[in-house]
Amino acid sequence: MGLRVLKFGGTSVGDVEKIKNVSRRLIEAVDAGDEVVAVVSAMGKTTDELVGLTKGITTKPSPRELDMLLTTGEQVTTALLSMAIQEAGYDSVSLTGWQAGIKTETFHGNARILDIDSKRMNQHLAEGKIVIVAGFQGLTDTTDIATLGRGGSDTTAVAIAAALKADRCEIYTDVDGVYTTDPRYVNAARKLSTISYDEMLELANLGAGVLHPRAVEFAKNYNILLEVRSSFTNEPGTLIEEVASMEQNLVVRGLAFESNVTKITISGLPNEITTLPTLFSSLASNGINVDVIIQSTSEKNTTSISFSIETASLELTLDVLNRIKVKLPYNNIFHESDLAKVSIVGSGMISNPGVAAQMFEVLSEHGIEIKMVSTSEIKVSTIVPQDKMIYAIESLHDQFQLDERKPVEQV
Amino acid sequence: MGLRVLKFGGTSVGDVEKIKNVSRRLIEAVDAGDEVVAVVSAMGKTTDELVGLTKGITTKPSPRELDMLLTTGEQVTTALLSMAIQEAGYDSVSLTGWQAGIKTETFHGNARILDIDSKRMNQHLAEGKIVIVAGFQGLTDTTDIATLGRGGSDTTAVAIAAALKADRCEIYTDVDGVYTTDPRYVNAARKLSTISYDEMLELANLGAGVLHPRAVEFAKNYNILLEVRSSFTNEPGTLIEEVASMEQNLVVRGLAFESNVTKITISGLPNEITTLPTLFSSLASNGINVDVIIQSTSEKNTTSISFSIETASLELTLDVLNRIKVKLPYNNIFHESDLAKVSIVGSGMISNPGVAAQMFEVLSEHGIEIKMVSTSEIKVSTIVPQDKMIYAIESLHDQFQLDERKPVEQV
Repeated sequence: MGLRVLKFGGTSVGDVEKIKNVSRRLIEAVDAGDEVVAVVSAMGKTTDELVGLTKGITTKPSPRELDMLLTTGEQVTTALLSMAIQEAGYDSVSLTGWQAGIKTETFHGNARILDIDSKRMNQHLAEGKIVIVAGFQGLTDTTDIATLGRGGSDTTAVAIAAALKADRCEIYTDVDGVYTTDPRYVNAARKLSTISYDEMLELANLGAGVLHPRAVEFAKNYNILLEVRSSFTNEPGTLIEEVASMEQNLVVRGLAFESNVTKITISGLPNEITTLPTLFSSLASNGINVDVIIQSTSEKNTTSISFSIETASLELTLDVLNRIKVKLPYNNIFHESDLAKVSIVGSGMISNPGVAAQMFEVLSEHGIEIKMVSTSEIKVSTIVPQDKMIYAIESLHDQFQLDERKPVEQV
Repeated sequence: MGLRVLKFGGTSVGDVEKIKNVSRRLIEAVDAGDEVVAVVSAMGKTTDELVGLTKGITTKPSPRELDMLLTTGEQVTTALLSMAIQEAGYDSVSLTGWQAGIKTETFHGNARILDIDSKRMNQHLAEGKIVIVAGFQGLTDTTDIATLGRGGSDTTAVAIAAALKADRCEIYTDVDGVYTTDPRYVNAARKLSTISYDEMLELANLGAGVLHPRAVEFAKNYNILLEVRSSFTNEPGTLIEEVASMEQNLVVRGLAFESNVTKITISGLPNEITTLPTLFSSLASNGINVDVIIQSTSEKNTTSISFSIETASLELTLDVLNRIKVKLPYNNIFHESDLAKVSIVGSGMISNPGVAAQMFEVLSEHGIEIKMVSTSEIKVSTIVPQDKMIYAIESLHDQFQLDERKPVEQV
């Protein structure tokens, strides 16, 4: 008995029959005595179809107008789901992001949630209604509709769970939990029963694709018990909580990978204290996500910097670099595409310094060239050729024995 | 030079190419020095497709949820149109109904506009932007999204024209003006260059389908110069203004017709002062539109009442009548479907009492049975068998010489 926030992604509400399935799940929760808030995405490929419509008009839609367009997708799902619940004789109400009180930054396409005024949701819950909220959207203080970016419905769900002090936030998706690596590509992948926020964060950031990283951060900050589970079965999923029990001793808990990476190297930059901030704030203000960053050993007055980006941002990145040359002179730009990022993640690494070395050894033994390396306390990432990505993951999965429940220390 | 409100219906924005055409028309207006507000409907069959989605879920969607669903259609159009304008290098902003300050009654599916707070629209116009507003929708005082009912985008446009004190409100549609009757069915139909609000109101009410009647009422009340014209040509359309000049002497200016009419007759009702209000307020509160009403000569204590409804409301009407029998006893209900309404409209009728008789004579001569009659100062309506509808219109069009510019008095 408690307050549950359930989030359903695009494939979970992909057609009318699936929406009816979701309504049954919500009704079961109400019948079990729970108060229920559902957060939903746009149906299946709706968002892509809407983006497709813009292609005939412009190659660079204004982010504000794109948000106006895309947010209709979630609104459609909320209305249909509410109708399905009402058809079964239960009470419900659909709310857009702004009706649910979700306030965001004025940063169209990638806004963060600033605050949630939960008055209206609480009122509808008190009336005994199932509250259905459009994910991925909110209202700016200029009263414009903004989106949280792709995957933002996860964040909506967790933020609502925090605002309403919900007992649990359940993310329903087309996979049945968090795996040691992506089971679509690696047969040996195994489902984890628990994982810590930090490990999940690294896996999400590194492209595991199950949960939006902001959602995990939000859950960690507000200590929201998260569960990732399948919308198509009743199997338990993976619990994400402060300290993952049971399998905690595993040094490496999961492998993440991400394709379409491009490495940029800029040589001959002035070796000054302002170089890094000038470079990366220019990239950031143009919405370019920079991932791995390496500053090379510098000569006397100049330095070289390498960083990785999504290949889709290459043109824009070169454009920005070209424009900033007046204030930030450099010699040359090199770029290399068709790369991928392969990472190992696990809290156990903190006390186990040899893990990175073990990773490099495995890749080297399998003839996989490492282009860049980046490490944090609980992960090691490498940039490798894209055509070796899956091979690298399979080799590492095998080496760290992720298909077995044996802690790696015992090897 | 002035402030123009231009409204584009579903076929005018039916695909991306048509949306681009609309953007060019708006840009021409701006280039000519005008301030421009555009009101748009959902693209083509979007509304029907959205309604289609509900069919797999429920046969009786809650009107509130249906409004949440349907209003996304116009929002999509506003965003795409704004992108098309911006792509051409002009400034614009898309607004939902609530963002444009449109406040409505809490009567989902058929709400009336109560007020427009035009602050935001004025601000954007002052910034030099083309303002694009989603038609057909507004916000209730419970902060729910409500629609104005089908055709409500016309009303949105006229209401905005009134609120902004616009110089002109232009309704762009798939016909090039107001005709003596529907040119899709009657070859002899002729375009009128002007028509009065009252005549247009009767034509709109009677199903001419070019303009939503509420829009005409609104225009009449606020004395807005209206023009109906084609979105596909540059031909002048039909002007709707207080006194139609030129052709004013025509006794009959247009013919309207409407199919799918059902006649209901209730016999044995108590002959009391409360009978009519009880009966028709019950029907109204269930959203049933009653059209022609006839109270027959009564016997001592009982009376018979006949009225016409849309055939689609038959089931609901019988249901309501069944329920009110406890407070309003009656003997029998008869109903007859497959009927149509055929009407003649013209301001000149006020001073020409023989016109109704002339209409009945024509119908009779052509063997068309008249089931009901209703008259106002400027129209005469008859209910006739549906399979004789077009034949009746053709006969009347010919009789009143509407295909010629000769006033009928000269015949």
